[in-house]
Amino acid sequence: MAGKVSPLAPKSYADLPAIGGVRLAAAEAGIRYRSRTDLLLVRFDPAANVAGMFTTSRCASAPVEWDRARLPSGTARALVVNSGNANAFTGMKGRAAVEATAASAAAAVGCGVEEIFLASTGVIGEPLDPAPFSAHLGRLAAEAKPGNFMEAARAIMTTDTFPKLATRRVMAPGGAITINGIAKGAGMIAPDMATMLSFIFTDAPIGAETLQACLAEAVAGSFNAITIDSDTSTSDTVLAFATGAARARGVADLDADAEGLDLFRAALADICRDLAHQVVRDGEGATKFIEVAVTGAVDDRSAKRVALSIGNSPLVKTAIAGEDANWGRVVMAVGKAGEPADRDRLSIHFGEHRVAFEGERDPSYSEKVVSAYMKNSELSLRVDLGLGNGSATIWTCDLTAEYVAINADYRS
Amino acid sequence: MAGKVSPLAPKSYADLPAIGGVRLAAAEAGIRYRSRTDLLLVRFDPAANVAGMFTTSRCASAPVEWDRARLPSGTARALVVNSGNANAFTGMKGRAAVEATAASAAAAVGCGVEEIFLASTGVIGEPLDPAPFSAHLGRLAAEAKPGNFMEAARAIMTTDTFPKLATRRVMAPGGAITINGIAKGAGMIAPDMATMLSFIFTDAPIGAETLQACLAEAVAGSFNAITIDSDTSTSDTVLAFATGAARARGVADLDADAEGLDLFRAALADICRDLAHQVVRDGEGATKFIEVAVTGAVDDRSAKRVALSIGNSPLVKTAIAGEDANWGRVVMAVGKAGEPADRDRLSIHFGEHRVAFEGERDPSYSEKVVSAYMKNSELSLRVDLGLGNGSATIWTCDLTAEYVAINADYRS
Repeated sequence: MAGKVSPLAPKSYADLPAIGGVRLAAAEAGIRYRSRTDLLLVRFDPAANVAGMFTTSRCASAPVEWDRARLPSGTARALVVNSGNANAFTGMKGRAAVEATAASAAAAVGCGVEEIFLASTGVIGEPLDPAPFSAHLGRLAAEAKPGNFMEAARAIMTTDTFPKLATRRVMAPGGAITINGIAKGAGMIAPDMATMLSFIFTDAPIGAETLQACLAEAVAGSFNAITIDSDTSTSDTVLAFATGAARARGVADLDADAEGLDLFRAALADICRDLAHQVVRDGEGATKFIEVAVTGAVDDRSAKRVALSIGNSPLVKTAIAGEDANWGRVVMAVGKAGEPADRDRLSIHFGEHRVAFEGERDPSYSEKVVSAYMKNSELSLRVDLGLGNGSATIWTCDLTAEYVAINADYRS
Repeated sequence: MAGKVSPLAPKSYADLPAIGGVRLAAAEAGIRYRSRTDLLLVRFDPAANVAGMFTTSRCASAPVEWDRARLPSGTARALVVNSGNANAFTGMKGRAAVEATAASAAAAVGCGVEEIFLASTGVIGEPLDPAPFSAHLGRLAAEAKPGNFMEAARAIMTTDTFPKLATRRVMAPGGAITINGIAKGAGMIAPDMATMLSFIFTDAPIGAETLQACLAEAVAGSFNAITIDSDTSTSDTVLAFATGAARARGVADLDADAEGLDLFRAALADICRDLAHQVVRDGEGATKFIEVAVTGAVDDRSAKRVALSIGNSPLVKTAIAGEDANWGRVVMAVGKAGEPADRDRLSIHFGEHRVAFEGERDPSYSEKVVSAYMKNSELSLRVDLGLGNGSATIWTCDLTAEYVAINADYRS
């Protein structure tokens, strides 16, 4: 899965600081890949408050079912993630593998199984053998270190071409709060949930319920506003862990500090958007990063459906791959969305160039100028429906022959 | 647009007989293509009864709007079709082009403009100059011949690699009825409507309302049950014309002949399915013809949504392109459909091979056997949801790098 790095990759990686109470370690468990890490343990001492968002798939993976059942307790002592095998659609064997892994992790860090959170990503339908995990987890628990976020981000990759990391520092009234995040993509990416896996770690003193509310809001405008191929995974998981270690530096509990909470909420939304954009930038075969903004819809929900209809259209995405200013396909995608739209009120911008206005090609349209714009690696499509005040923005990438090549032989 | 013919093309073309009252002619009008026909005139003498089904796009083309307005009159004297320019999203200019073309055709065949039906296919958003049509249409009206169905099928092609024709002979109690059909694909194909353009011609004596009911039923199980790329065109049109010429041979009016009507209805459904399958077989870049059958859904509507979720999934389609028996992606597509499904009741067949059963990989699963099956050019995926009696079948093709290549530079 090495190969070349996405041309849309960031020029440098964020350097994530240590977070009090969080230690990480990764191992080569040989689940599927050779000569790379594929097993991650993150331990929290003492227990962290936890929040989570999961796939809407009706065929959710065994780890997703496990986490959903654990979430109401609100606290976590460890997170175990493996790449290479999704442990999805694996029936009783899948449940048994999850229970065995949780038991190994609980023994390794010294807690009950109900404080273990799990995530798996990779091939669907192949039984996951948990036996190798137990030996590794004991060692990882002993070796785990505060600063190992880059190793963690690498261990959870599948077809990703670069590790995804982000960090933010929140200056709350009582002192600084750190938020770190890692994520992996890079196919089977569509709302809800967009990212397959993302894990957020913070030293904020914040209760699990408040954290859940902040996370839900952040995910709506980030991981649930991106699409690579309209396919929704069985395994999508976003988990946020708050250790509260900043309390020792004088930071007030955010549940009782409205100003601090507002700053934290904004930073969390920002880090989620950053990671979600990185997922799009690593979309399988992607050569263009595309923002689709829809305004003038009857409401926000309708705007988002129109935006996703554009962002998921194979014909729009292949035209962009070919650097073809084929705005007619945007008209097509608006038309097929099933949302209120009036052809004769529609206007479309590619970047700063208005290409369509009031039901026809813009009088000032210049194929040469717009074609030159299409050569950029970051593109903005704006559609105004002219009907109301609803708006939404989503992010996607182009559809290339490379996407097909990657996915035609993913298992082989 | 010549290039190589789809590997899924029929080995031979149907030989369409003449139909009393129908004459056809095609010309090179130079709309977009060079050295090929791109303008079709079909004339009906006397007027034919007409029925039609159109795109559900909110940005329908000017010809679609024209036909919709004409349909209630129930009779047609001529059909004019051009390829190379869809006359869609062309505003006032589009309406003017439609009116000018209808006026030219009406003058050419000697009728009122309200008996002219129109269809256009090709690029969206470029103004269509109707000026060249008038000269051509006069000549075509004079030259039109009864047997010219192959020429007609060729003139309406865009990225199609082969002309699509079908014919059926209905032995009604009073005598034989002929039904001929032509169609064109081959991208921007999804319900509703799937085929971009299809035209059916019959000598059946049948009223416009009865014909409309038969056509709606036939289209539901054919053109509205195929998908190539989930994109719905602005221009999709199916028109059926019944001249009644069989009446002269003693065939009773079908409105008053229940047995004959049943036979006609079945033959119309059959010819529509035949043409719809040909559209899939000419899907852009297609190398596999795929039937997706869903049973055990809570109702037929739900079954169709699950079937389309599978048939539209880029990950399912790329896996099939790679001849990879990646049934896990079928699980994913069932899960994301948003319809009732229970992972642990799901079973999946690839051909005769049961690959998944009761929530996990089938105990008898053999990667070698199923991989061998995937080498076939015609594949059957069957999913039983185990919930109820709803069922649906749809047809699609694989997603290949060739699809991307075709669509990345369609306009250039």
